[in-house]
Amino acid sequence: MESARELSFKDVRIGPGFWGDRQGLVAEAVVPYQWKALNDEIPGAAPSHAVENLRIAAGLSSGEFHGFQFQDSDVAKWIEAASYAIAALAAAGRRDPELERAMDGAIELVGAAQQSDGYIQSYYSVAAKGKRWTDLEWGHELYCGGHLIEAAVAHFQATLSRKFLDIMLRYVDCVDAAFGIEEGKRRGYDGHPEIELALFKLYRVTRDERHLRLARYFVDERGRKPCYFDAERERLGTGKRHRMLELDYFQAQAPLREQRTAEGHAVRGAYLYCAMADYVREGCDPGLRGALSAIWENATGRRMYVTGAMGSQAYAERHSIDFDLPSDTAYAETCASIGLVMWAWRMLLVDPDSRYAEVLERALYNGVLSGMSADGKRFFYVNPLEVRPAVDRARQDHEHVRSRRFEWFGCACCPPNIARLVGSIGGYAYAFDEASVWVHNYVAGSASFPAGSGNLILAVETDYPWEGLVRIRVESGEGVERALRLRVPEWSLGPGRGFSLRLNGEIVPAPSMERGYAVLARAWRPGDLVELELDMRARLLYSRPELGEAIGLACVQRGPFILCAEEADNGPGLHRLELDPSSAIAVAREDYGFGPSLRAEIGGRRVILPPPGAPLYGTEPPAYEPCRVKLIPYFQWANRDDGEMRVWFRTM
Amino acid sequence: MESARELSFKDVRIGPGFWGDRQGLVAEAVVPYQWKALNDEIPGAAPSHAVENLRIAAGLSSGEFHGFQFQDSDVAKWIEAASYAIAALAAAGRRDPELERAMDGAIELVGAAQQSDGYIQSYYSVAAKGKRWTDLEWGHELYCGGHLIEAAVAHFQATLSRKFLDIMLRYVDCVDAAFGIEEGKRRGYDGHPEIELALFKLYRVTRDERHLRLARYFVDERGRKPCYFDAERERLGTGKRHRMLELDYFQAQAPLREQRTAEGHAVRGAYLYCAMADYVREGCDPGLRGALSAIWENATGRRMYVTGAMGSQAYAERHSIDFDLPSDTAYAETCASIGLVMWAWRMLLVDPDSRYAEVLERALYNGVLSGMSADGKRFFYVNPLEVRPAVDRARQDHEHVRSRRFEWFGCACCPPNIARLVGSIGGYAYAFDEASVWVHNYVAGSASFPAGSGNLILAVETDYPWEGLVRIRVESGEGVERALRLRVPEWSLGPGRGFSLRLNGEIVPAPSMERGYAVLARAWRPGDLVELELDMRARLLYSRPELGEAIGLACVQRGPFILCAEEADNGPGLHRLELDPSSAIAVAREDYGFGPSLRAEIGGRRVILPPPGAPLYGTEPPAYEPCRVKLIPYFQWANRDDGEMRVWFRTM
Repeated sequence: MESARELSFKDVRIGPGFWGDRQGLVAEAVVPYQWKALNDEIPGAAPSHAVENLRIAAGLSSGEFHGFQFQDSDVAKWIEAASYAIAALAAAGRRDPELERAMDGAIELVGAAQQSDGYIQSYYSVAAKGKRWTDLEWGHELYCGGHLIEAAVAHFQATLSRKFLDIMLRYVDCVDAAFGIEEGKRRGYDGHPEIELALFKLYRVTRDERHLRLARYFVDERGRKPCYFDAERERLGTGKRHRMLELDYFQAQAPLREQRTAEGHAVRGAYLYCAMADYVREGCDPGLRGALSAIWENATGRRMYVTGAMGSQAYAERHSIDFDLPSDTAYAETCASIGLVMWAWRMLLVDPDSRYAEVLERALYNGVLSGMSADGKRFFYVNPLEVRPAVDRARQDHEHVRSRRFEWFGCACCPPNIARLVGSIGGYAYAFDEASVWVHNYVAGSASFPAGSGNLILAVETDYPWEGLVRIRVESGEGVERALRLRVPEWSLGPGRGFSLRLNGEIVPAPSMERGYAVLARAWRPGDLVELELDMRARLLYSRPELGEAIGLACVQRGPFILCAEEADNGPGLHRLELDPSSAIAVAREDYGFGPSLRAEIGGRRVILPPPGAPLYGTEPPAYEPCRVKLIPYFQWANRDDGEMRVWFRTM
Repeated sequence: MESARELSFKDVRIGPGFWGDRQGLVAEAVVPYQWKALNDEIPGAAPSHAVENLRIAAGLSSGEFHGFQFQDSDVAKWIEAASYAIAALAAAGRRDPELERAMDGAIELVGAAQQSDGYIQSYYSVAAKGKRWTDLEWGHELYCGGHLIEAAVAHFQATLSRKFLDIMLRYVDCVDAAFGIEEGKRRGYDGHPEIELALFKLYRVTRDERHLRLARYFVDERGRKPCYFDAERERLGTGKRHRMLELDYFQAQAPLREQRTAEGHAVRGAYLYCAMADYVREGCDPGLRGALSAIWENATGRRMYVTGAMGSQAYAERHSIDFDLPSDTAYAETCASIGLVMWAWRMLLVDPDSRYAEVLERALYNGVLSGMSADGKRFFYVNPLEVRPAVDRARQDHEHVRSRRFEWFGCACCPPNIARLVGSIGGYAYAFDEASVWVHNYVAGSASFPAGSGNLILAVETDYPWEGLVRIRVESGEGVERALRLRVPEWSLGPGRGFSLRLNGEIVPAPSMERGYAVLARAWRPGDLVELELDMRARLLYSRPELGEAIGLACVQRGPFILCAEEADNGPGLHRLELDPSSAIAVAREDYGFGPSLRAEIGGRRVILPPPGAPLYGTEPPAYEPCRVKLIPYFQWANRDDGEMRVWFRTM
């Protein structure tokens, strides 16, 4: 069933360029900054207490637990991000002893906070002693465990040290003893999916069938009737659920095989669907595949913002219904886009079709990266597509919408989540099997693929996504026969558009295209040079007309970037701008003072403000003045002065 | 200072026609229905307990208080509406003994619930004994008292009986003893304005200077620093206010003379501004007039929906900021539009300029009447301009938006408020002074104006607002010299539009226009016939471009009616419709099965749904098919099958 193997981040070296810049920022600024945040050392930032909770659980400190039940997961994600950072530094021949000490200390702390039977969670060790596994609906125990497992796998892969992995193997034994269909075990599962994908990830390292069985159990059990959560509530005597927090919020409204739509909490859903894809990838029950495909179609075909964001409402951080994607009250949590990247990646491994890579790219270059400021020190939890700060301040139903990134959050899931994704971005670029090498994302650097007794090493030189030229040189792999499959993004195709492919300087006429990939099959020789030039011309995008919030509107895309207008470039009243679809869109590289960027300009017009005495409602249609609408990549908004931002525009 | 006197509802007889139908419905169906509701006799409706609370306070029943602190006000508004109903029946030579018994019983109940010193409020008599006047910010004591005073004045005017008035005079003595700037009195005022306008109304009946002084006191005191409510909170030990419930929520952020914008709770504001207009009307302190004008301009020029609705957010039922008027999450409380009618009416008395009548008409024929179903038995609290039931059900921030009217509400301010406004609608049609008679609204029936020793009686024959012809015949008033000032609505004027005026069959060429009124000055003779024909052709309206929610959109107005499209006439997906501004708008009377209505049709086009497999986002601009967009008066929406509704449309 498995169609492709992923290339580990360890086998990908990232050189200078778009991702090199960001991975450097993460290793040198973001990860150290976040360690300070987790230790409550950032003045003015929301308190974390995450490290202190573990210290108390370990008996190294006294005091009370503070924060959410899932506070441990922030530390887990940080260790994972730190592992990637250390690996990236090592690949560049460098070390950061201070970071290594912090990471080792964090791992030792988790180990010290582990109970004798392997159980780990500071909340249930400190604040709710003796209540372990009693509130799976909201306790986040297995969620935290899942993140710790992911971190342990990353740490093992990055350092080859087993010390964290061994801690988490004991934890998994504890979970395995507690959950399952066997007599005497709980037939429960966590309210927040995460343990499932973590166990699949662990299994791919350990190949221990118990880990696969446990992962499968959690996937199979979810949504079984009568619902475990209902019985649990009865035991706890908790009351009726809010209608927004019913079983579908937990993706537990039905067994997964029977689900067809992306419901409930957007992040929970994305993590769960990752595990469903892992399940299919491991060759287990193809019956799940139909559900997975249907949910994918629903989520990405009807419930996804043009920025690859998901979750259209703040309350319960959840999906609402098909095509309901408000721009101004969008929740669009950074973690949901991260989850979508993770999910799309797994879909791509199951079925190497560029349709999944398109979604991955959309989410990664827009909804994910918008979550972090250019300096790596401020973060968005919510990523709206339209911001008017004065309105957002005045309206209670816009309370979640901010025009400035935060230094930290009480619920700080997003910042370390970006850090771990960016840190491991090399692992989201390539796949391979016996016959093929896929390049899904163009990342400057190199990648080493196992090929028989040796390796096929490709060096990638590119300024993607700022520019469309990608040069791939074979560095080693004499005589290795592989079909090189280069993704040609959908935005580089279509009427009047195209790409060019050269092999050793010679144009490849009408290159073979398979499932969205240009295919060059041959026995490679060191020095072979493949040059792909994508069509980076900016273009207008429209939504399906069912999407009421975007009907009659258009947005601008340039390469993988969705663009937006900011008040800083266009003045206030962005809603008064209209785009001229017949106008050429001029794009130039630009430095606004926060690192490489670009400026796009499109002809348009602006509604003229009538004199103050003109009536609020009248028969006079709007009057216009011509203007140029200036746009920047959406992910870079809010790095300058506070002000309005807008993605969708009326057209002339 | 007083520019015009209003003609009491008692001096206006309403004949068959638009308002006769509605007044009949109110007298025969709405008022009896609401009495049942207040007595908890409507199966399935939200409980009221309002009458029972008073019975308990009167010692006639035992049990506990239920409902809000302001539950008494529902009974007050009902007595007021019943008084108007009884007067209307009497004018038609009829009686309803059952209604009279119910009304008398309600008044006796209020009297029985009155404490020995005149105090009345069942909440503080039953549930919070001994806590009288301790929580003016939220207690609604003077708010309830104000409604009772209004009811007593109406009852006195309708029946000439003093029995309720006398009860309320004792109440006012109690209030007068408790509040004021004099030593030993509280310098407080109510969190919910209402007592102020009620005391001005009482003063106009009693001419007792103490009533005027007390009314003025409450107006003058509001917003004085340090704020009474802050001191009260300190005494009560209540915590910090939510940022949406700060002093501006109560219009107490500054003394009224210093206020320039309409802030806070929309209904509270409207009631307060009524009192400010009354204050100016009574010739008190012209310093208040500047504030009043500025607030009027702000409220109606920047914070009013095209339907005359106000209050753009559900949370705290309040204004947000200038030009922030969302269509789909509008709060637009029925009571706020009622308050706007009351406020505009008072502005018109202070300054007889049609600009105030325009707003009155806009609110009355749209945002007010939409609050009640055609059968008078179901009510909207919230009056949105765009409804998609599936979205509204799925979204927590749309929870207040309903596509079906309710049988009753726990907080049932709106239903009896409509009943009292419709019941007294004759009182919102005419004004007069020594030299002039103004006709502000065209209501079939007759009106009798004091004119020297006799009366000038005008009989009005019209099917307004269904049709534009108004025939006014002088029935008595031989030789009375008055300038008859007939309002020519703004929608009947402007480029390519007009009206015609005939006197005794002869066209009046270029009639004199003063401040929006066509003026016919002469010594009238019985039999004189004035015929005004307004231009009822439907037209498109646009908003000022600052209004982001309506920019690029248009709506259709026909006469005073704003029109809307319903799913029942246009199928689902109303957001896919666009209007053709060059299309003639055909209008015909229509009977949809819920009484007289009209059908407007305008040419347009509809975005075609692409095939299911088409991408959510793509480069294909929308494709259209021509269609006819069918519209009905906004106030009549939701009288047929449940479905979508929309006021604003894109244009071609």
